[in-house]
Amino acid sequence: MSEFPVSDRTRLRRRPARGAHDEASVFAILDAGVIAHVGYTQGGEPRVTPTAYWREGRALYWHGAAASRALRAQSECPLLCVTVTHVDGFVLGRSGFAHSLLYRSVMAFGRAQRIEQRADKRRAMDAFLERLYPGRTREIRPVHDSELDMIAVLSMPIDEASAKIRSGGVNEKDEDLAGPGWAGVIPLQPTLGETLRDERIAAHVATPASIAEFRAGARLDDVLGSRGRRA
Amino acid sequence: MSEFPVSDRTRLRRRPARGAHDEASVFAILDAGVIAHVGYTQGGEPRVTPTAYWREGRALYWHGAAASRALRAQSECPLLCVTVTHVDGFVLGRSGFAHSLLYRSVMAFGRAQRIEQRADKRRAMDAFLERLYPGRTREIRPVHDSELDMIAVLSMPIDEASAKIRSGGVNEKDEDLAGPGWAGVIPLQPTLGETLRDERIAAHVATPASIAEFRAGARLDDVLGSRGRRA
Repeated sequence: MSEFPVSDRTRLRRRPARGAHDEASVFAILDAGVIAHVGYTQGGEPRVTPTAYWREGRALYWHGAAASRALRAQSECPLLCVTVTHVDGFVLGRSGFAHSLLYRSVMAFGRAQRIEQRADKRRAMDAFLERLYPGRTREIRPVHDSELDMIAVLSMPIDEASAKIRSGGVNEKDEDLAGPGWAGVIPLQPTLGETLRDERIAAHVATPASIAEFRAGARLDDVLGSRGRRA
Repeated sequence: MSEFPVSDRTRLRRRPARGAHDEASVFAILDAGVIAHVGYTQGGEPRVTPTAYWREGRALYWHGAAASRALRAQSECPLLCVTVTHVDGFVLGRSGFAHSLLYRSVMAFGRAQRIEQRADKRRAMDAFLERLYPGRTREIRPVHDSELDMIAVLSMPIDEASAKIRSGGVNEKDEDLAGPGWAGVIPLQPTLGETLRDERIAAHVATPASIAEFRAGARLDDVLGSRGRRA
């Protein structure tokens, strides 16, 4: 099992049993997400930008407008902290202290670089689409060079990463377990709604195969999880 | 309509029509969320920590272990960037370039301070519980002083904030609209699952009133939104 190196940045001091540094744990959480929070500094001040991202091997990718100040600052920052979090539920205990959230999160550190060559940008952006909607790049026209020139794509090899997972049920002190109160867990899941067709497409155009798994009521974890297992 | 001051940090350069700086827009997004990503610096490096939070007026609150290094660094950081993001759906266009996400996000800046007095911590933690589960503090025993001493509570008056909202449908170039491809939007909603009672509570203990709205299939936005309207 391949592990990320542990440093002062990623060592889990509090409740280390909830933490992990192995690739499988880190990748599973990254691959279940859509938005990362990219932390960088600008003039010494922290900035946290929500950004759609994807992963290939030990690297994270994201993109933005070529003229974006945020992306420029990110590519110039000697170290980024990229955090992905899933809230999986609410925990209610017999005492206020035992109330908690279920979650999975990854904190990944590295230095980002801009992908300069058009061919590499094209390949990266295709991978982004294919990750979410398998086969989508074959359903649509190729990206124009002029479109590629309008965006910047960053890649960040993950130098260090830690995963934190709070799962399970209510953790309560023995003295409270005897109490009369209610306790339990309420799961939370990002769930897909009914697909809304653009009004401007012709009635005969069928829903494409690339979103076959995006059924109303499907859980995003299941949809994206199947992608990860395929890759 | 009360507006947050706009600075270089919060001015929206790209697609300003998607942005806002008024309290109502900012508070609505903050009040629909459970986890914020708290950005701070440690030794000049960025850190992004996912944290349960709540809002009172123009201030954000969160808590952690009293001994937490992260919370100490946050309280010592001259400026924090706290970001809250909701992913509301997937947008598929006829071209790769028109693919996008629906989202709402807020970036809030300020300086955090520790709440020192036990009475103030108790009041803050009660407000946290009441925000999620109205009436919960009357259903459970009071927090022990020893429990309050184990945690640190931070409050951050929001000095500056910006909201960004991408809603609506597919934005496509005219030349692509004529194409044969499929386009549309797939909504995404954090949705509650079936409540799981702690196995250790007696069969006669009823589900409490504080989670009456946490019904299986309910959308978190609706549950938390009703709280905001009530406050």
